[in-house]
Amino acid sequence: MKSSFLMTPGPTQVPSQVSLAMAQEIIHHRVPAFGALLKDITEKLQYVFQTQNDVLVFPGAGTGAMEGAIVNFFSPGDKVAFGIIGEFGSRWAKIAEIFGLQPIRLGGEWGKAVTAQDIDLLLSSEAGKGVKGVFITHNETSTGVYSDLKSIGEVCKKHNVLYLVDAVSSLVAIDCKTDLWGIDVVITASQKALMTPPGLCFFSVSKKGWEYNQEAKCPRYYWDLANALKSLKKASPENPYTPAVTLLFGLNEALNMIKQEGLENVFKRHLQLSKMFRTGVEALGLELMVKDEKIASPAVTSIMLPEGIEAGKISGFFRNNGIVIAGGQGQLKGKIIRVGHLGYVDAFDISNTLITLGRAFKSQGKALNTEAALKKAWEVYEHE
Amino acid sequence: MKSSFLMTPGPTQVPSQVSLAMAQEIIHHRVPAFGALLKDITEKLQYVFQTQNDVLVFPGAGTGAMEGAIVNFFSPGDKVAFGIIGEFGSRWAKIAEIFGLQPIRLGGEWGKAVTAQDIDLLLSSEAGKGVKGVFITHNETSTGVYSDLKSIGEVCKKHNVLYLVDAVSSLVAIDCKTDLWGIDVVITASQKALMTPPGLCFFSVSKKGWEYNQEAKCPRYYWDLANALKSLKKASPENPYTPAVTLLFGLNEALNMIKQEGLENVFKRHLQLSKMFRTGVEALGLELMVKDEKIASPAVTSIMLPEGIEAGKISGFFRNNGIVIAGGQGQLKGKIIRVGHLGYVDAFDISNTLITLGRAFKSQGKALNTEAALKKAWEVYEHE
Repeated sequence: MKSSFLMTPGPTQVPSQVSLAMAQEIIHHRVPAFGALLKDITEKLQYVFQTQNDVLVFPGAGTGAMEGAIVNFFSPGDKVAFGIIGEFGSRWAKIAEIFGLQPIRLGGEWGKAVTAQDIDLLLSSEAGKGVKGVFITHNETSTGVYSDLKSIGEVCKKHNVLYLVDAVSSLVAIDCKTDLWGIDVVITASQKALMTPPGLCFFSVSKKGWEYNQEAKCPRYYWDLANALKSLKKASPENPYTPAVTLLFGLNEALNMIKQEGLENVFKRHLQLSKMFRTGVEALGLELMVKDEKIASPAVTSIMLPEGIEAGKISGFFRNNGIVIAGGQGQLKGKIIRVGHLGYVDAFDISNTLITLGRAFKSQGKALNTEAALKKAWEVYEHE
Repeated sequence: MKSSFLMTPGPTQVPSQVSLAMAQEIIHHRVPAFGALLKDITEKLQYVFQTQNDVLVFPGAGTGAMEGAIVNFFSPGDKVAFGIIGEFGSRWAKIAEIFGLQPIRLGGEWGKAVTAQDIDLLLSSEAGKGVKGVFITHNETSTGVYSDLKSIGEVCKKHNVLYLVDAVSSLVAIDCKTDLWGIDVVITASQKALMTPPGLCFFSVSKKGWEYNQEAKCPRYYWDLANALKSLKKASPENPYTPAVTLLFGLNEALNMIKQEGLENVFKRHLQLSKMFRTGVEALGLELMVKDEKIASPAVTSIMLPEGIEAGKISGFFRNNGIVIAGGQGQLKGKIIRVGHLGYVDAFDISNTLITLGRAFKSQGKALNTEAALKKAWEVYEHE
């Protein structure tokens, strides 16, 4: 018997309640029962998005939502700014470029954040003149850094630009007050803190977003949000084309679980577990990539690999011992390992991961202080 | 207790084996076990696509594959021809237009087919000069007509144009000899004869298709097939971004079932059941929309509604009695009802649908000859 428990930044572990919901008899997507399901899901999505804006769900991966956020709000030639703090910010800017936008890429060393001050400076400069939108990655899973959405929101408001946030790996794990912080477009996907298998992606769109949408000239059909909204607003809400019905069954159950725990409690749990893990990692004698706690992600933690330790051997040891973790991406490949602690995760999972870190490094000839790590980690759990 | 059995042209009924496969523990998409799964699935897909070409799977609906087939092979300004025999052909041409292509729409009355002769005439005419690709809907679910792919393939070869086929609702239900008939691009989706819930779509691409791909200038990222191929060709095959893992578990099981039955037997079953149903419908005293058996779809049958009978009342009666059927789309709304008989379907389902047709019309004051219909339908089943 070999388990394969996911401590990755997505897909995350799927609760069996969600799997069972997906195993129920499939229904057709043009019957009243589906309309009722979609209405119910949409309301719960507004709760987790913390918004009164329209929330739309599509069959597709998070990368699809990234493309959708470009083509629905902008036109070829439009100048837009990206706060780039890792792989996913880079990808978003690349998509913008492919669709003919003029992306300004703001951001330096991976592992640092792009701040409201940075954005403000750009938008106040000659270089930032005419920028129509600002794209921010909320939680950069490639590094484990998260952005301060609230203060960036104030800057976007001041400069009157569209504010778009990639919350693919953060929504429900890290607080994202869509309406209060003035975020016009929030995108996310099912397989992260939403505890549902991959295959669904989501958009929330503000009134200002829809105004931009009216003017946007990028070609679009599959990701056409206005078309999806029209279908959603029917007496019996529906999708323009066949939705991923079974995944929606699963999502509905996952949203029920989140509602029952309460969004604030879910945020607290993620924060508590990430502190528990970070404390444990340091007590093991390992180096955190993101040392500044103010920007350290509650959803994913990157650990620097000491000289002479191969990433593949560590993650291989993990895999052979029943836990899946992730390696570095892009320029960080081979330099870090990444542990996701989001979604359906608890203190035992953190504890088991710390133990396995100790064993994995030992297998590579490097002794870590597992006893101290467990002691300190559980102390954090008790007191946070 | 109320069942909700799907006799729609998709989504179709999901076998419980498939649902159970999807309920298994989720795996990560960057581990060797996923690579092995994707390799296995890809080989089985080549079997059902009847091709040695590359077959690629994406998270998304069939409409996404329609968009992908435009943006990966053509450039704005390209002249292309569409054989339009219903709603889905219209949609495909519309997507082409949105992405800046110049679609020539060939096709008249819905319910008729576009033939190889029609295509040949166009491509030989002044109007067809410079056409770079021909798009054909294999099985038009909005009418219940299917196209003769083989003879159209010969015409495409003669004129040396790219040949693209929408087999979303036909693959596995109706013979589609991709390689033998020279089809460069075939698209399909999971929720039809592949007996898997909606959320996956597929492309097969020929060598000529990849040559077109090299020149194609339409902007693309999510649907970038060359990028997907690169990931698929890795030592451990993968996807460029998170695949819909649980749906792939289900698909794998469905493909096993299809392999076990044998593709030829699956085609025969669909043909037999459609003849059984068509015979029954006529014996009931109802009018088939597609009278010519040579173009009548083995996957879906459209029934004309007599004067004074409301489509919504018939499909409502069906729904209240445990079976879901579909109404007309576009210009056929209110004029027909459509019954899908594809995927996980057998003679009992046909028989039950005929009985329910009789009861539904009776509820609207119109007596049908159910006894004769059942007798003749089961005779067809015995003798075909």
